[in-house]
Amino acid sequence: MNASGETTSLFGVILAGGVGARFWPLSRAAYPKQVLRLLGTESMLHATIRRILPLIPAERLAVVTNAEQADVIRLDLHHYNLTDIPLWLEPQRKNTAAAVALAACRFYSCSPDACLAVFPADHYIQDEPAFLMGLLQGLRLAHRGYLVTFGIQPTRPETGYGYIKAGEPLDANGTSFQSAAFIEKPDLNRAQAFLQAGSYYWNSGIFLFRLPDILQALQNFLPEIYQKFAQLKDDDTPARLGEIYQDLPDISLDHGIMEKAPNVAVVPLNVGWSDVGSWGALHDLFPQDGRGNVQLGRTIDQGSRDCLFFTQDRLVATLGLDNIIVVDTPDATLVCHRQQAQQVKDLVRMLEEKDCVETKQHLTVERPWGSYTVKDSGPGYKVKQVVVAPGKRLSLQLHNIRAEHWVVVQGTALATVGKQQHRLAANESIYVPPQTAHRLENPGTDPLVIIEVQTGPYLEEDDIVRLEDDFWREVTAAN
Amino acid sequence: MNASGETTSLFGVILAGGVGARFWPLSRAAYPKQVLRLLGTESMLHATIRRILPLIPAERLAVVTNAEQADVIRLDLHHYNLTDIPLWLEPQRKNTAAAVALAACRFYSCSPDACLAVFPADHYIQDEPAFLMGLLQGLRLAHRGYLVTFGIQPTRPETGYGYIKAGEPLDANGTSFQSAAFIEKPDLNRAQAFLQAGSYYWNSGIFLFRLPDILQALQNFLPEIYQKFAQLKDDDTPARLGEIYQDLPDISLDHGIMEKAPNVAVVPLNVGWSDVGSWGALHDLFPQDGRGNVQLGRTIDQGSRDCLFFTQDRLVATLGLDNIIVVDTPDATLVCHRQQAQQVKDLVRMLEEKDCVETKQHLTVERPWGSYTVKDSGPGYKVKQVVVAPGKRLSLQLHNIRAEHWVVVQGTALATVGKQQHRLAANESIYVPPQTAHRLENPGTDPLVIIEVQTGPYLEEDDIVRLEDDFWREVTAAN
Repeated sequence: MNASGETTSLFGVILAGGVGARFWPLSRAAYPKQVLRLLGTESMLHATIRRILPLIPAERLAVVTNAEQADVIRLDLHHYNLTDIPLWLEPQRKNTAAAVALAACRFYSCSPDACLAVFPADHYIQDEPAFLMGLLQGLRLAHRGYLVTFGIQPTRPETGYGYIKAGEPLDANGTSFQSAAFIEKPDLNRAQAFLQAGSYYWNSGIFLFRLPDILQALQNFLPEIYQKFAQLKDDDTPARLGEIYQDLPDISLDHGIMEKAPNVAVVPLNVGWSDVGSWGALHDLFPQDGRGNVQLGRTIDQGSRDCLFFTQDRLVATLGLDNIIVVDTPDATLVCHRQQAQQVKDLVRMLEEKDCVETKQHLTVERPWGSYTVKDSGPGYKVKQVVVAPGKRLSLQLHNIRAEHWVVVQGTALATVGKQQHRLAANESIYVPPQTAHRLENPGTDPLVIIEVQTGPYLEEDDIVRLEDDFWREVTAAN
Repeated sequence: MNASGETTSLFGVILAGGVGARFWPLSRAAYPKQVLRLLGTESMLHATIRRILPLIPAERLAVVTNAEQADVIRLDLHHYNLTDIPLWLEPQRKNTAAAVALAACRFYSCSPDACLAVFPADHYIQDEPAFLMGLLQGLRLAHRGYLVTFGIQPTRPETGYGYIKAGEPLDANGTSFQSAAFIEKPDLNRAQAFLQAGSYYWNSGIFLFRLPDILQALQNFLPEIYQKFAQLKDDDTPARLGEIYQDLPDISLDHGIMEKAPNVAVVPLNVGWSDVGSWGALHDLFPQDGRGNVQLGRTIDQGSRDCLFFTQDRLVATLGLDNIIVVDTPDATLVCHRQQAQQVKDLVRMLEEKDCVETKQHLTVERPWGSYTVKDSGPGYKVKQVVVAPGKRLSLQLHNIRAEHWVVVQGTALATVGKQQHRLAANESIYVPPQTAHRLENPGTDPLVIIEVQTGPYLEEDDIVRLEDDFWREVTAAN
């Protein structure tokens, strides 16, 4: 068996359809966990892709997400120059069985003998070389006909994960096992027993199998999903995919197949894994000071213990706290007890019921050309700081209702308003009347920053007609 | 004895020189506790004045503060149309003995037989009629030659206050007593004993005495202060006052006189008094929900107990907290344990050592003509929202360095730039070059709101030359 020979037939799919509401207020409906830079400067999605590129190059990868999140995922891929990786959009949010079936069918049509690895988009892995070695071990088992799962040695009696019981060893080194049982999230007593027993592993949600084997398993154990996807064609329209998804069962791959199939293997991974499931998990992943605190951002503390303080540009000062999480963003702050970090999800549901805008969007919105930040708004006006990256330009657009006043405050702007082009330096301004085609461009090598004052009776983002665009965004033919 | 006859000879001085750092981040160096609207819509200072006006009209009142706080105190008096009340500025922050000596000498020079009542500017009193009755009772005792203190029946073994031990009754109803002892802040054991004994009162810091009596007491017990103020003249310059203050001892009236004088009386007040000494005290003054929480502002909570959540316009969401105080302002957030609310003062000292701008000024700054709010700033620019009250105008001014772009977003502006006047409606803008005299006026009956984008290499508030002003602010003769 030859490793390089094996991996050329290995495809990968990244499941990036989650919301990650537990990371509110950093996560928003339009800014899910997988694009957050929770652990440094790269998004969780990018870390997931970068980590596996040595084994699976971009041309054999795909990202599956749902239509609602298409823009933000595409922007993240764009940001990291990963636009070659296809983005497959599920018309509805189903569960992992459907997403894996979609990927398996799509890859099968071009490479029916290949293997497929499945990765959640939002996990952390500390020891990446060891992780790749584990995947290679899984690949060998897949070639032997196993549906391979990857198990994490438990370090605490966690009740929030599923467990896999390891059975008979499948190799001489004891680095892989037949799966003896799949156990749904246990209660604390059982979780403690699993921890002591030693032969139970957390289910990491990472899988690897030959395409024919997973399709056979789908046919055997989830025939209602298999039948639907058997009708899938390469050139299916979104509408056609919508029909396929309409009545699909909402079931996980674990529950639908792995619990039932006889040929399931588990490869234990000792790689410093975390699913980064909540702010509490983040507290565990960062170095703590002598009092057990993790302080990220502009925080000043006196006398607190075992806390996580996470801020962006605002100042957060803390005093005498114990096991408290404070997460601060420009428009919303969360303060919660560390033991309740999982319940942030319920809190977000409450906020959504009250229609709080802070669950939807950040004040800063990233765009393929740069970003904008809402700095002020009131009846009849909105103020944005707009940053355009060097050499980039916004779409040629017009607004039916609002007018815009642009003041250049850093860099140089090339402003098209109507048929005129104007080159504006810092401290120069221009007025853009309603219903006038306009475009903002940064012709320089430094970032361009403008202050945009919008006025008018309607100031929402959907008052925009895009006439031309440098990116993937839909344009409307001009009259 | 005739009440109206008495009160015509009653003067009042309000001591408004405190900082109130325990109320950070709502209090700032430039925005002290006495001007905060902690308990509703009026400032603590205004509440103090309004409460005593039925007994002491404005023409017999004075406010003492220090030179640093002159602007903010004057603005607060202006806001409530109390500009007739003189503001006496101490050149240095000394203690209450000096402030009372200053007031006593000033009032003595015009009314040598009058009485003087002394009020801290930052206390809360629930039952105002009962409070006025207590003052009248004190006035009767002052006329009998007593230095009168006002005592609060303790409701807890507080270690943060001084106590007064009541001695022999001074009237048949038992509503006033000779003071038997003044006790500095006791330890918990003594405080518990005082609470049980029943004849000990908290020292409220409110005093009342005849001017000759307090001057005599100063001469007897604080001769080094008395000698200095004996040189005071009505027309003293700030420089002369500076000389008087230079070597004054830093001592409280309680410690310097009340502990030592033989003719001290105490009038118990049962008036719902609070010194509103910390965020913890504020928690006690507001109605609590079924779980003991006080929520003021835009807060959403799930499952917390005995907490205070105080926000302005931002969203604060809280989850599973116990005895936690969260105070949120546009640029800074405090999270502290309720038992540590007193230590906020130390935290502010830490922030000051780190030179945090958030200890100095708010993003919104009130002015006699309205207010401005810093909405964004970066290298070379600053964005302000400026609100001008109907009929008001800013000073005629110029900036040596910065330029300004004004966009009217609500109301109507009369903009003077150089020699030209321009009437601007919403969605109109104008440019103000550096070194150009300009003035912004609201000629309308609704508030005027403009967005001001400042550009230039220096953007601090002190780049201003005031040429004319409608208010009390210093103007520079134009060239």
